[in-house]
Amino acid sequence: MTEYPQTPRAVPAPPVAGMVGAGQLARMTSQAATGLGVGFRVLANTADESAAQVVAGTRLGDYRSLADLRGFAAGCDVVTFDHEHVPGEHLAVLEKGGVQVRPGAAALRFTQDKVAMRERLTSLGITCPRFAPVRTLAEVEAFAGGTWPVVLKAVSGGYDGKGVWICETAADAKEVLAHGIDLMAEEHVAFERELAVVAARSPHRQGAVYPVAETVQRDGICREVIAPAPGLHPGRRAAAQQLALLIASELGVTGLLAVELFETQDRLLVNELAMRPHNTGHWTIDGARTSQFEQHLRAVLDLPLGSPAMTAPAAVMANVLGGDDADVYDRYIHVMAADPAVKVHMYGKPVRPGRKIGHVTVTGEDPAELGDRARRAASYLRWGREDGE
Amino acid sequence: MTEYPQTPRAVPAPPVAGMVGAGQLARMTSQAATGLGVGFRVLANTADESAAQVVAGTRLGDYRSLADLRGFAAGCDVVTFDHEHVPGEHLAVLEKGGVQVRPGAAALRFTQDKVAMRERLTSLGITCPRFAPVRTLAEVEAFAGGTWPVVLKAVSGGYDGKGVWICETAADAKEVLAHGIDLMAEEHVAFERELAVVAARSPHRQGAVYPVAETVQRDGICREVIAPAPGLHPGRRAAAQQLALLIASELGVTGLLAVELFETQDRLLVNELAMRPHNTGHWTIDGARTSQFEQHLRAVLDLPLGSPAMTAPAAVMANVLGGDDADVYDRYIHVMAADPAVKVHMYGKPVRPGRKIGHVTVTGEDPAELGDRARRAASYLRWGREDGE
Repeated sequence: MTEYPQTPRAVPAPPVAGMVGAGQLARMTSQAATGLGVGFRVLANTADESAAQVVAGTRLGDYRSLADLRGFAAGCDVVTFDHEHVPGEHLAVLEKGGVQVRPGAAALRFTQDKVAMRERLTSLGITCPRFAPVRTLAEVEAFAGGTWPVVLKAVSGGYDGKGVWICETAADAKEVLAHGIDLMAEEHVAFERELAVVAARSPHRQGAVYPVAETVQRDGICREVIAPAPGLHPGRRAAAQQLALLIASELGVTGLLAVELFETQDRLLVNELAMRPHNTGHWTIDGARTSQFEQHLRAVLDLPLGSPAMTAPAAVMANVLGGDDADVYDRYIHVMAADPAVKVHMYGKPVRPGRKIGHVTVTGEDPAELGDRARRAASYLRWGREDGE
Repeated sequence: MTEYPQTPRAVPAPPVAGMVGAGQLARMTSQAATGLGVGFRVLANTADESAAQVVAGTRLGDYRSLADLRGFAAGCDVVTFDHEHVPGEHLAVLEKGGVQVRPGAAALRFTQDKVAMRERLTSLGITCPRFAPVRTLAEVEAFAGGTWPVVLKAVSGGYDGKGVWICETAADAKEVLAHGIDLMAEEHVAFERELAVVAARSPHRQGAVYPVAETVQRDGICREVIAPAPGLHPGRRAAAQQLALLIASELGVTGLLAVELFETQDRLLVNELAMRPHNTGHWTIDGARTSQFEQHLRAVLDLPLGSPAMTAPAAVMANVLGGDDADVYDRYIHVMAADPAVKVHMYGKPVRPGRKIGHVTVTGEDPAELGDRARRAASYLRWGREDGE
């Protein structure tokens, strides 16, 4: 009989998750880490960033510097991300050095290179808008084949509508090409609405998926998310959830995967992917048993995943954008007084017009009524009146 | 016509709440502060305390030192507390110096001096156990009048059953008197069960009150809280809530007030008061629209109070006490796997047998079923088995 070695153990410390980036996603992840009792660090560019303001385990450094990433990783059991801008070659070096990078470089690549993402999804038989990498106006015109608008997208680095151009004419396309960045052309999909589904996958290959949400964008920025997506056909709902789990599995994602979808009369097309907590999942803080931030931590730390069930029949989240007057705090007192059940989440970010500075969530029964309340609160926080855009 | 002066303003900063004490209450309050986007600091004795581990705005100092309190208060708009042990004379000095102390020294006194609390409540016509300050065995025996047990309580400084002695005989009482501390004798109430109700009151005199909960104590330590208290008569429920609001108002509380009650066949008696987030309100993190931690911040910052409505028909919280094996983290993986909807909250505290190191909350429909699940999870976290005590 073999006895296993019985080494005396010191008091075991919980694992430490390190998040590269210190924006609002890291800030909200820190709230979940505090509840779970796991260690949490963020790598911030400056001490006044959203998460750096509140997280004791803040380290300063540059996410584009391999040395800074290495130093940060040395204090963490797992490294994860609040954005997709860390150079892939650095991630590969960290992984070679034994750092647990979650999601790994091979998966993250599909959020850093939209052509690679489209090619991979297409090879899996997943419906995407028609696409092609383009370098010249002739290539864009050939792609259009006389049918405009055509969408041009930066192959990497875009977010919140930045890096996406809807070109009505060849002249529009010419202007975009003049930026001199890597571009991809995409079919302009005449969708009925946009949907989003957030899934999680752990290194143990456990998967979990949240209810499918409807998202409302204006000027390329997500403004509202309604969960569950009203009136979504059960078959299509299941298909969207299966799709997210399939992509997470096939792409080897560890952590969250957010899939943004176009819904047309007869099909679902994948628009974008993100492998981190995502704006379309903020409603889960107040509307699901397990918030997406807790779920991401559980997934990257290889803990069993939490229940993605909703805590109410419906939840609506509205983003709070910056307006002209920086004194949000003064206005939010009125929002709290007007609707004591609205949940206000502020990110500690200086107000700039159009910038996401917070969000509000309302949970309850009727998505139309919840939407009205969420929009009123978000508008008041931005403009000091309830009916702003 | 008088014009109000229009001084140019810099970008306004949200107010900063400072909490004296860095235990789990401050830790959980920090999660709410992050969401609200208000500034938050804690005054910790050491950098490894529960809240100090996670809060960027941690300051080190001694809550018994006036100099340390003054230095801490200088960086805060409002000073509040995660315990009631700050010397009242220091608080009075701070208030004289213009510091916003919430709750104020005059109110906090009633949590620091149980005789003063009993006298004040009695003068308001509120039913309490019969009581008397006692210094000698003769006084205890006179109070007992031949009927034992008699409860002896430390007039100040007790918590979690510490500072409370149930004396079956005069010999027991003699032992307690030998401690040489200020004591009070109380009638031993043969209650049916214990209840707790948490209210909030703001400087604007807005009040809000949570549903009445049932609490289950063992060895003087709160083990479970069931909200709402099962089978509570609606009239008695309303009476308990009115009582909490009345006490908050009459004692001039700003912030939270937790009232622990004995329920007997025919009446409610006030057992203890606390003016801070309280163990009997932890269920509100997962079970109410506004957690008690957010509510406390809203109250002390004079923000409009949040909805105390429940997010589910029932919630049960069970405290996680330390067991013999320090590796809680290893065990909580199993708890998460066994019940993905249980919410585990860990405090980052070293495990010591019997010490509160976390809590679990389950929300749903049937309090009996929720209680089973919460107890199983708490037991497993403590002992590595589901049926421990």
